Parts: sequence; structure tokens; C-alpha cells
Amino acid sequence: MSNRNLTLLTDLYQLTMMQGYFENDVNNHEVVFDLFYRKNPSGNGYAICCGLEQAIDYIKNLHFADEDIQYLESLNIFSKDFLEYLSDFKFTGDIDAIPEGTVVLPGEPLMRVKAPIFEAQFIETTLLNIINHQSLIATKASRVVRAAEGDTVLEFGLRRAQGPDAGLYGARAAIIGGCHATSNVLTGQMFDVPVAGTHAHSWVMSFESELEAFRAYAKLFPHKCILLVDTYDTLGQGVPNAIKVFDEMKAAGIESKSYGIRLDSGDLAYLSKCARKMLDDAGYKDAVISASCDLDEYLIADLKRQGAAITLWGVGTKLITSDDCPSFGGIYKLAAERENQEMFKPKIKISENPEKITNPGIKKVIRIYDNATQKVKVDLIALEEEEFDLTQDITVRDPKARWRKMHLKAGEYTMRELLVPIFREGECVYESPKTMDIRAYAKQELEKLWDEQKRLINPAHIPVDLSDDLYYLKERMLDAYK
Amino acid sequence: MSNRNLTLLTDLYQLTMMQGYFENDVNNHEVVFDLFYRKNPSGNGYAICCGLEQAIDYIKNLHFADEDIQYLESLNIFSKDFLEYLSDFKFTGDIDAIPEGTVVLPGEPLMRVKAPIFEAQFIETTLLNIINHQSLIATKASRVVRAAEGDTVLEFGLRRAQGPDAGLYGARAAIIGGCHATSNVLTGQMFDVPVAGTHAHSWVMSFESELEAFRAYAKLFPHKCILLVDTYDTLGQGVPNAIKVFDEMKAAGIESKSYGIRLDSGDLAYLSKCARKMLDDAGYKDAVISASCDLDEYLIADLKRQGAAITLWGVGTKLITSDDCPSFGGIYKLAAERENQEMFKPKIKISENPEKITNPGIKKVIRIYDNATQKVKVDLIALEEEEFDLTQDITVRDPKARWRKMHLKAGEYTMRELLVPIFREGECVYESPKTMDIRAYAKQELEKLWDEQKRLINPAHIPVDLSDDLYYLKERMLDAYK
Repeated sequence: MSNRNLTLLTDLYQLTMMQGYFENDVNNHEVVFDLFYRKNPSGNGYAICCGLEQAIDYIKNLHFADEDIQYLESLNIFSKDFLEYLSDFKFTGDIDAIPEGTVVLPGEPLMRVKAPIFEAQFIETTLLNIINHQSLIATKASRVVRAAEGDTVLEFGLRRAQGPDAGLYGARAAIIGGCHATSNVLTGQMFDVPVAGTHAHSWVMSFESELEAFRAYAKLFPHKCILLVDTYDTLGQGVPNAIKVFDEMKAAGIESKSYGIRLDSGDLAYLSKCARKMLDDAGYKDAVISASCDLDEYLIADLKRQGAAITLWGVGTKLITSDDCPSFGGIYKLAAERENQEMFKPKIKISENPEKITNPGIKKVIRIYDNATQKVKVDLIALEEEEFDLTQDITVRDPKARWRKMHLKAGEYTMRELLVPIFREGECVYESPKTMDIRAYAKQELEKLWDEQKRLINPAHIPVDLSDDLYYLKERMLDAYK
Repeated sequence: MSNRNLTLLTDLYQLTMMQGYFENDVNNHEVVFDLFYRKNPSGNGYAICCGLEQAIDYIKNLHFADEDIQYLESLNIFSKDFLEYLSDFKFTGDIDAIPEGTVVLPGEPLMRVKAPIFEAQFIETTLLNIINHQSLIATKASRVVRAAEGDTVLEFGLRRAQGPDAGLYGARAAIIGGCHATSNVLTGQMFDVPVAGTHAHSWVMSFESELEAFRAYAKLFPHKCILLVDTYDTLGQGVPNAIKVFDEMKAAGIESKSYGIRLDSGDLAYLSKCARKMLDDAGYKDAVISASCDLDEYLIADLKRQGAAITLWGVGTKLITSDDCPSFGGIYKLAAERENQEMFKPKIKISENPEKITNPGIKKVIRIYDNATQKVKVDLIALEEEEFDLTQDITVRDPKARWRKMHLKAGEYTMRELLVPIFREGECVYESPKTMDIRAYAKQELEKLWDEQKRLINPAHIPVDLSDDLYYLKERMLDAYK
């Protein structure tokens, strides 16, 4: 999968523009593009950036195969010279990116591409596709896991995912966002993450009786025996049959390490509390009650508030599609350009809509931590060449209301640059961590936020400010245009 | 792409159940599963089924490679015998399906799989993944195209799609649902569908001035010259610069076949009406005004109601993700089973929730047309062995309210069976039509519905009834269980 050639997975206009750069002999003008987003999905207070490993694979595999060139020729819109030039295409630029699993905020470049415009323009669509998708699902998973308050959360959504990749990479992102395992076997194989699952209604229906189906399953998987109890009648038949099978296992001397039931329909609060009592009364206080059925962070939080006796949550459709917000609005905007080896000139995109105006220039992202609490204090977007001196007090201002200032005293704060080198002159200089390590890192990242900033609904704002230099550069450029 | 091995793209529980069937020596019990859905997405009156070609590719490529078996072995939950058996796995059963592009309705088997339980169970997840995704997007596209009332609709969503496949196959489904072209070059290459696109804001920003950027583009693509006019100031600068370039083209004797402007921000109704007047006054009455920017069927319909002067719509995020309903609830349920060569026994899944009770037995779907109008009268789900005699009057009853009857007089109606053979004993016996032919067929399909049934909001209901034989079989089985 990782060497799949996705070169033509792009918007046609990238290619028409590239022909334009080529014909105008500006294809080697060097540019800087920022990949960033404007709004956290699902009303969350942050996003978890994700997808870098697949973005790297994409860049590494970029090339126009002969059949690609032939196809483009068949469209009758490209010149022979241009197509010949394309056949030698490879990425030769620099990319910096924020590592996967990092907490990120609106306006911050998650990725910064410095390359000839011919190359930097071309990779826009697919970079956005990959980063938008996985950041969306990782962020949604982070919300679901938070709602579950320490309970186990399993990703079960493959059958409702938007195509094979949405299932495959969505499950990867869900794990990075905090899910404990996925039902998706291919994701397990490709990314070495835990896989989980038991049986479906069809298993029960394929036997003469539910009891026989449960017995057969318990015989086969005594040490991971979660029985689905709602095929016919949850409390009247399913749970009693499960208890009968647990009794038989006990009588046979089998001490299961992990056993219990799964509810997949009905009122999960009511059924789980009744089932808990039935299991406890029968002596199975350590039997797990798991649940699935249209779950999301809101329903899990509400079920928990009502005392549902569920400790293992299988979350499908609404996680794998990010149901309430199925897209992550990542965009890719020109920030600077130069001819030959001149200085880079900052570029700005104006809009009637102030929040759509871009930040010009080559930028870096600095996260400032409070030393006393180890929590994030503020993120600062600054120009690449700016240097900050930790031995000095600094003042950071809200770019939308400059009178809102934050004073940071020397010795009371620490800084960290979020962007790290990924490609240098076309060579990958970064090794992606293992998926489970990214998951552990993302968990640490969330510990650096206050609970108020992680609230599911209307969370406290984490400030993202602009350095004075960047702020005034932007003001000057806006003034000159308007 | 079409020979990509997606065998492990499945839920782990399919494999644990398969081991169960294998160990219990029931793996060769023959079963029938129905793939169907319960509710049309986005409140639509119908769905457009889609994805069969990729489902066929999936089945054809099914096999466990050595590394797949090794991976499964590493999980320590599968027996050696079972894994050896798996390594010879292939699909040997029969599949019937409703052809892609057909109008389908809730409860109808879109696909019917008859195979040893070992095989039929295994393919559940991926069949659902593929059919759910593409049917969702084809249905959404059908709504968007309907809102555009004959205007051209382009699919532009790749950058916001949920991963590469969601972009690739989503664009295919969007074309089948009625879009005229896609920006997605790989979809164009793989499925021989029209591709479209012009240039981005970055093209304009990369030149010293907007006017230079427009001139360069017009020089390059004089016969497909749609200029994006909102980079700096749509009416103050963008449209006047576009008109200047059209004047220059005219002066140079270039008669463009297709030229105009694209709006990508601001109030599209207001801006398009102003731009139309400016273009008309300058003598460019045939200049196209196209628009993009968070469009969906509701906004397009509303913009048209307000007289927006737009005739070409580029629809991205909200189409490719089916924003208001990002999943299609297809499910896969056991309908019948037999041991050896006995008669098939019907199977039913009960639920406290009446609409979640399945239809038992091996079924077919019959669409009944009214001869006078050529419109669909009613769909009938019947048992496979039932025969209907067109020379007789028939009465069809609503299964939820049996007193609601429809009398059909001999000679006034025609019947069509929707399910067609796709696989027989593991061999594919069906050739998928070309994507553009499926699109043409889907368009014909929609002509068989009344406008009232195609309304975007609260459409008239198209009835799906059960044959008397099926109705009474279901009643008897429910009675026996409860």
C-alpha cells in the first residue's frame, strides 16, 4: 500500500497551472506554501494532527508513469514539451511539519513546503486529502475517548467508512487519537496496532439456538469470550444464556481472563444496569459489559451521566466518518516567493472575510509552556528569522484585539518549536515513529492542556498569537493592497 | 488499483467467526445474506446504488497472501489448521445484485450472496464498505444535480475527501449520480470520465499582478478560459481585469469556445448578478459565470431562487463527504441457511425495534411500472420461487398497514426483476458497463419517478411492499419466536 502511485490523484487545475508555470518559464521560482486550517472540527478546543507518514509515502512515490503521460496526452490540453518535462518530475524541495499526534490550533502551519512552484503547487491536493482526513478522525477519536473517561474504546467503523482507505487510515488515526484497538485487520497488520472483535448476530442465528451459539463460541475463545446478547431478547434470553455458559465454563474449571457481554441495541443505560445486576447476582462481578450502537462522544457522556454499567465502548459509524463534522478544513496557501536566489518576498491572500486573510512570509510555530504547571500557555506564530531570548520577559498580543496582552516573565516559561524537518532537497530526513508510539505521544500532548480546554462543548480557548514582526508585516501588506 | 488485495480489510470478528464455523464443521453450510439499507440518506426519496464494479474487483482478488497468514498467526488466536484452510480461500458462491445506477429503496436487497457460510460471512465488511460509500455519494450527487436544474455540476472535493479512495471512488459515484465532470485526474484516467478545472488563487498570487496572471492563463488556454476573479477584490478588480483580458483576446482575433469567470467567496447571488451585468455591458453575454464555495443542494436551490446568474457549479466538500449525512446505513443480514443439499430454511433477526426486524428467506425485488405513464408504481419484495402472472390483476399491500392496498389491472402494469446474476459458483458472469453509460442509465432511472418523489425535502413516498407469501412467512416466524 505504501508504494501505491497516487501521482494522478490530484485536481486537474494543478496540472494546467503547472503547464502555465512551465510555459512562462517561472516553474523554478521558489515558493513557500503553508498547510493550515481555520477552525477546529466538532467545536473542539484543539485538533490532533495526523497523516504525516502517509504524506511522506506519497511524496516519496511521486512520479508520472508512462501510462499517466499517455492519459494526460489524450486530454489534448497539454503540450508535448510540458509532458516530456513531467515525465522527469520528482520532488526536490524542503518540507517541515508538525509531528503526528501533536495538539495543533487554527492558523498554525501544520506543514510548510518550500520548493520550485512547479512541485509545491502539484502536491497541494493530495497532501490536503491525507492530512485533512486523518487529522479529522484523530481529533474525533480524541473526543470520544475523552467522553469515555478512561474506559476502553474500540474503533468498529470499517463497514460505514467512506471507502477502503477511509477505513484503513481512519482506524490508524482513531488509534492515534486514543482508541485502544480497532476491528480493522488490515490496519492491525500494516501499523502494528491491536485488533479486537468477537461475533455478530449472524453467528447466533446460524445455530439452532442462542445457547448453542454461545457454548460454541466459549469453547473456541474461552479467554476472550464476549457474547452478543441482543439477537432475540436481551434480558429475557440473552443475558440468562450468557450466565448459563459462564456457569458451565466455571464448572469445567476454565477461568476466563476476559469475558462478558455485548449490547448492540435497545436502551443501553437501562439494559446495562439490569444486566450488571444479573451478572453480579450470578457471581460474575468481573464480567465486562460492552456496548455498541450509534455511539459518539455525546451519547457516551450522557450514558455515563445516567450510570450506565458499560466499561467498553465499540464506536463505529459516527467516529469513522466524524459524523457531526465530516471534513477538516485544511487549506494550502502561498506565503512567499522568490526568483533565482533573491530574498523571499512575502505573499498574502486578501479576502472580504477577515478570517480568510492569510499570514504572509516564512513562518514558524512556537509553543510556550508555563514552567509551574507544565501546561500550554500560548502558541505564537512568528517569522522564521525571528529569535526569542528565554532570558527576557516577553509580551504576546492577541492579533484580533491587540490590547489583550499576556506578559511572560523570564524563567517562568519554556518555548518549543513545533515544525521539524521532514524533507531536505527532496530527501526524506525524518523517520516516522510507530503508530502506538504516536498514540502515547498524543496522550502526553493532551496532558499539557487544562481540562477546560478539553471540554466537549464550548471549550476554553487556547490562544494563538502572532509575533509583533509578523503582525506588522501583515498590516503593512493589507494597507498597501486596500 | 483494481487488483489491490484488500483481503485483510475486514473486521476481526469475521475471522474469529470463521474459525468457529471451521471448528464446528459447519463452514460448508450454505447461507444467503442480503445487503440492504433501512433509510434513504439526506431525507431523499430514493437512493442510487453504486459500487458494484469495485465489489466485483474485491471478490475477484480475494486471497490470503503468505504475509497475511503470518500476520494472523502472530495474533495467537487462530489454530494452525484453520490458517492452513484459509490459505486456500476463494469465493465459490453466487451473487446477485441490482445494477449500479438503479434507483433503489429501503429494505430491498441490493446484493444477495449465496455461498458457504465461511465465505459469505467473510466478505460482509468490505462489501458494505464499498457499496455504502459509493451509494451515499451517488445519491448525494443526484440531489445536487437536481438542485442545479440542468446547469453543469462539477465534482471538486478531492482535497476534503476522507482519504484517497474516498476522493477516487467518490468522484466516480458523483459522476454516476449525475455530475458532468470531476477535477480528480486519477478518476478520469481510471474510469474514462471527463475532468475539469482551471486555476487557483495561488496562480494569481504568483504573478506580479492579477492582470498579468489572467493574461498568462488566457494565452495558455484560450479555448477554456475561466478566470478566478476573487483573489483580491471581485467587483473592483477581478471582473474588470477579466473583461480587459477578454477584450485583448477579441482584439487578437481569438474566439473562445468557453470562457468566463469563477467566484469562490463572498455572496454568490449578489456578486454573480453584478458580474453578469458587467460582462453583458462589455458585450460578453456568453461568458460563463461559475461558482464554488461550500455549495450543496440547499444553497444551490436557494441561490437559484434568488436569481443568481450562475450556470456552472463546482461542488466540493459537502458533496464528496455527503456532509449532512456522511454514512449510508447498509447492512448485511442472514436470510436463509441449509445443511448439505436440504431445502433452505428462512432465518429472521428479531428486534425490539420493529423496523430492525429482517425479511426472512431468499428474496427477489420486482419493480412494477404503470404502462400509461412509464413511472414506477410500487416495488415488491417477494420470495425467489414466487411467480407472477402479468395476465392477472394483482393486489399489493403495505406491510405496515395491510388495509392500504393497491390494485393493479392486467395490461396496465409491467414488471421488472431488479437483481441480476453477478457471480455463479465463484465465477463472475457480469460485465460492468462503462461509468458514463451507468451515468446515462441512472438519468433514465430518474425519469421513471414523479417529480414529487424527487423533491429535496420531504419527498413523496415510493411504496415498497412485501408479497403475501413473504408477509405471512415473516408473521409466522415472529409468532413462533415471541
